[in-house]
Amino acid sequence: MLTEEKKLSGTELLASLNWRYACKNFDSSKKLSEETWNALEQSLILSASSFGLQPWKFVVVTDQKIKEQLPEFSWGQRQPADCSHLVVISRLNELTEGYVHNYLDSIAATRSVSRESLSSYADMMLGFLKNPADKGVWMEKQCYIALGTLLTSAAVLGVDACPMEGFDAKAYDRILGLEVQGCKSVVVCPLGYRAEDKYSQLKKVRFPASDLVVRV
Amino acid sequence: MLTEEKKLSGTELLASLNWRYACKNFDSSKKLSEETWNALEQSLILSASSFGLQPWKFVVVTDQKIKEQLPEFSWGQRQPADCSHLVVISRLNELTEGYVHNYLDSIAATRSVSRESLSSYADMMLGFLKNPADKGVWMEKQCYIALGTLLTSAAVLGVDACPMEGFDAKAYDRILGLEVQGCKSVVVCPLGYRAEDKYSQLKKVRFPASDLVVRV
Repeated sequence: MLTEEKKLSGTELLASLNWRYACKNFDSSKKLSEETWNALEQSLILSASSFGLQPWKFVVVTDQKIKEQLPEFSWGQRQPADCSHLVVISRLNELTEGYVHNYLDSIAATRSVSRESLSSYADMMLGFLKNPADKGVWMEKQCYIALGTLLTSAAVLGVDACPMEGFDAKAYDRILGLEVQGCKSVVVCPLGYRAEDKYSQLKKVRFPASDLVVRV
Repeated sequence: MLTEEKKLSGTELLASLNWRYACKNFDSSKKLSEETWNALEQSLILSASSFGLQPWKFVVVTDQKIKEQLPEFSWGQRQPADCSHLVVISRLNELTEGYVHNYLDSIAATRSVSRESLSSYADMMLGFLKNPADKGVWMEKQCYIALGTLLTSAAVLGVDACPMEGFDAKAYDRILGLEVQGCKSVVVCPLGYRAEDKYSQLKKVRFPASDLVVRV
């Protein structure tokens, strides 16, 4: 169980979430410490996914020469080059039966149970694979859970981030060599620390709660 | 800026994320305090979305009679009935130019700037509306950012949750009267506190970092 001192209060959580914004201008001289990066990498690995299937890869770019190639394919935005760690959240090219079986093997090994004891869970997942819904879109949605997890984790650690859909996914895949990795980029999240940035001073804009929240 | 005492350390964050699991068995006698619920509601409102457009509504179900109607449309799962607060993350039925103009008005009012000063941002969003990509799918993806934000926020507050895709969205929409609200359910998240639950004792299963993380 969580001990009391490890929790945040509601007020503290909201201070972090209000501090968070889409950072437009990273201080390229400030890098995440290894400890901070490791925590954020783990937050991605621990992200929830449907069935726990983790249909993703997290591509982490810190090589400055490669980062410098990316603004051209990001509507000219500098965040992918100026951030400390660029995370490219990527989905698998295909969700195969073999992947599901690997996952089942992983459950069996981690929890010291037999594959047979997982048969109804196996049937559920393999049945899902056969249903007609687009599995590519489904994997992309899972990637957005990981994005929300990463953004919130970064905020409570005091790390700046900038979620970005505005990039040329095919160019990213080529530059980062993702074909070989069996995945393709879905959404991008530069991480680091804000420089002087007029956007950080702007009031957050949200529709009123009365428009966004429906009580039943 | 965040003051030091409001941040979590990486170790503390990971303790919360490791404590989190998909709660299968809520203690129906334990309810979120108003303060805790308010923080989680705000975490949804403060969630990131592309362009900041917030193409969603958060439907919060606490009426027990209504909650009891939902397990039948949730593959028999009891979490929607036994939880404290059921959040149904819903997308707008349509993303209209009118909605974008309301958002622009909201920016102008919140930041005391003219609508004219926002013209390039307006052009970008209105151009996006006209591109051929499916806006329904795009809105659904945004809803998954809110889900990741909610799950992580709940975890750091010590609140249990259970993200669920396994429900009959049309039945939920009908029971909750979402047509009138101009939205449809995308993904569901019961919140509350775990009861005795064998699943909470199971080891978390994740593929090794070497499979999930690619360094470039």
